[in-house]
Amino acid sequence: MARIVMKFGGTSVADVARIKNVARRVKREVDSGHEVAVVVSAMAGVTNQLVAWVSETCRLHDAREYDTVVASGEQVTSGLLALALQDIGVSARSWLGWQLPVHTDGVHGKARIKTIDTDEVIKRFADQQVAIMAGFQGLGPDGRITTLGRGGSDTSAVALAAAVQADRCDIFTDVDGVYTSDPRIVTKARKLDKITYEEMLELASQGAKVLQTRSVELAMNHRVRVQVLSSFVDAPGTLVVDEDEIVEKEVVSGIAYSRDEAKITLVRVPDRPGVAAAIFGPLADAAINVDMIVQNVSDDTKTTDLTFTVGKADLARAVHVIEEARSQLNFKEVRPDPDVVKVSVIGVGMRSHAGVAQRMFSTLASKNINIQVISTSEIKVSVLIAEEYLELALRALHTAYGLDAA
Amino acid sequence: MARIVMKFGGTSVADVARIKNVARRVKREVDSGHEVAVVVSAMAGVTNQLVAWVSETCRLHDAREYDTVVASGEQVTSGLLALALQDIGVSARSWLGWQLPVHTDGVHGKARIKTIDTDEVIKRFADQQVAIMAGFQGLGPDGRITTLGRGGSDTSAVALAAAVQADRCDIFTDVDGVYTSDPRIVTKARKLDKITYEEMLELASQGAKVLQTRSVELAMNHRVRVQVLSSFVDAPGTLVVDEDEIVEKEVVSGIAYSRDEAKITLVRVPDRPGVAAAIFGPLADAAINVDMIVQNVSDDTKTTDLTFTVGKADLARAVHVIEEARSQLNFKEVRPDPDVVKVSVIGVGMRSHAGVAQRMFSTLASKNINIQVISTSEIKVSVLIAEEYLELALRALHTAYGLDAA
Repeated sequence: MARIVMKFGGTSVADVARIKNVARRVKREVDSGHEVAVVVSAMAGVTNQLVAWVSETCRLHDAREYDTVVASGEQVTSGLLALALQDIGVSARSWLGWQLPVHTDGVHGKARIKTIDTDEVIKRFADQQVAIMAGFQGLGPDGRITTLGRGGSDTSAVALAAAVQADRCDIFTDVDGVYTSDPRIVTKARKLDKITYEEMLELASQGAKVLQTRSVELAMNHRVRVQVLSSFVDAPGTLVVDEDEIVEKEVVSGIAYSRDEAKITLVRVPDRPGVAAAIFGPLADAAINVDMIVQNVSDDTKTTDLTFTVGKADLARAVHVIEEARSQLNFKEVRPDPDVVKVSVIGVGMRSHAGVAQRMFSTLASKNINIQVISTSEIKVSVLIAEEYLELALRALHTAYGLDAA
Repeated sequence: MARIVMKFGGTSVADVARIKNVARRVKREVDSGHEVAVVVSAMAGVTNQLVAWVSETCRLHDAREYDTVVASGEQVTSGLLALALQDIGVSARSWLGWQLPVHTDGVHGKARIKTIDTDEVIKRFADQQVAIMAGFQGLGPDGRITTLGRGGSDTSAVALAAAVQADRCDIFTDVDGVYTSDPRIVTKARKLDKITYEEMLELASQGAKVLQTRSVELAMNHRVRVQVLSSFVDAPGTLVVDEDEIVEKEVVSGIAYSRDEAKITLVRVPDRPGVAAAIFGPLADAAINVDMIVQNVSDDTKTTDLTFTVGKADLARAVHVIEEARSQLNFKEVRPDPDVVKVSVIGVGMRSHAGVAQRMFSTLASKNINIQVISTSEIKVSVLIAEEYLELALRALHTAYGLDAA
């Protein structure tokens, strides 16, 4: 007997037929003698509709009211799944965020879970009752509904798994696992049986949309064994686990990319102490995240060129902030460029293998792809390239690192 | 300065444009210096969609999960209206049933409100904050969401008005008031300026769908001045008030009807003590409400015919229950008839005026309309007639009682 948390995303509960399908899948685990808790997202499309209504209603929204509106989607699914389970003879009840409760901080719209009261749920495991928890939501210190940000149901599931000390947290989605690269672009991409938390974290934050980044952090911190698998195909998915559990570590596990990047170059910035703070301070004040930064060597010793990236949605705002500060910064020109992508090579094996970055650079060079910015971490090398080279770069790198399916 | 509760039904908040319209209407009251609380229904069609999902999901539903699912509609509207008000500069916040809370009994699906904690709302009136309460919902003793039955938002509004001791409870709907009869049938029907609680109660329970019956009872018990008016037309509606407030009482205030009636006749029932109990006991056990009852005089002294009415939706089930009990009841035949309507003449003036019933009977007789069953109360005379005569009967009675518009 194991204790399992199962999480179903929006496409898995998109309509009543699929909710019934989910119920049958849950019943199988219950019939096998497992203790089961389920976390559900809103029916596909519902959250978008709710967010659209909020945007239509007002220019700037009060995040507390936004949370009240958008959290209703998961409320509906949790009730419907409880009913579908009861209909096939499984004892089940829904739990809303405020009912357990799932205590969060007070940052409405992107709250963080602090604790989950699971006494009641655990007590009912003994009676074989399945707990259906509405994902994505919690209760803030102000006694109002909070939400965890888009994709937050993954985090709800991992947090619940940690709280009930589950043996496994199964994240059911519309893909059947984590791939070495995006299979829609790299047809030779392979499904991974296992991946480490660290790699999954890099993959998630580098644009692979399988799991919400925060849910992976949480899984890593609490050592929750997470499995990513399809709710439509009956096959094992990818296990996200501790590095110790993976005997044969690949040097590189995957090639990720993100289209959500935009580049800004400041031409001829005075090359003196304090100039970086003068540039990035106003951006931080405007809540604009800066990702990659590179300072070019200039031929003129008194000035330098500075390049950095921001989220594509923040580009116009970032340029505006920079222009506002022009008088202090004294640059010659600001050059925005939205037509860039970030490509990242990820693998824990990098720590013990030299030459991983060099192979990336030479592979891209052999295809005449110019690298605009480079950034590295212990288990990742990222480069910024022109968007038009994305497919070419992904496929070339996938082959170069020996990831292609046989 | 007055304290006002405004309630907006589903058609009044059917989309974002209408919610903004509602916000402007609320702002006008706030700008006039009034203290305002608002109760909202779900957007038109949303509750039906949610109920349909529940029906598709399971055969017999757990009313607690049903409540969790269907209460989400009002949650969305309350948040959106708060946002729409904030957007035009009015301080506002949404309150869900569990947040105030609105304490109800534990009868999920048709709970009754016991108390509403309004301290917080009243405190915020001083800061000109508008409270938007999600209608139709409360918190049960089990800590779960309860709902009040279809049309329950009217009851939420009146209960809130009673709890905050509001000067008036304005119920905004898609009609501009209470009419002497259904204007879709009786073109000469007039809008009433005022009507008594007792009359409104009879009208509501006799099929006029302007207000939920329970909301009128509550208004009467707590002496809440209710106004029924249109959210689309800018004009006074109908005030539902105490009898003392109406100086010139009409003998008859209105002619109501209900199509939701079905007749069952048991032919040749043994005419002995206990037979009525033997018939109506099983129906009560099956939760079938019996409305009108008449026992005919039979030519045969040992048997009698018994006629009664049930809700149209219960007809098949009622016949089944009766057939099951056939061996004990010993009747000759059961004759169901769904093609009947109930027409009611209502007016507090009846108490002091004789001949009201007689005028009804003679008017119907003059049109050759056969009366099948009669029932009366202090301020109402109801008759059951064949459905095909409905329009003719309504118009003839409207004229006979001098209700026609000039």
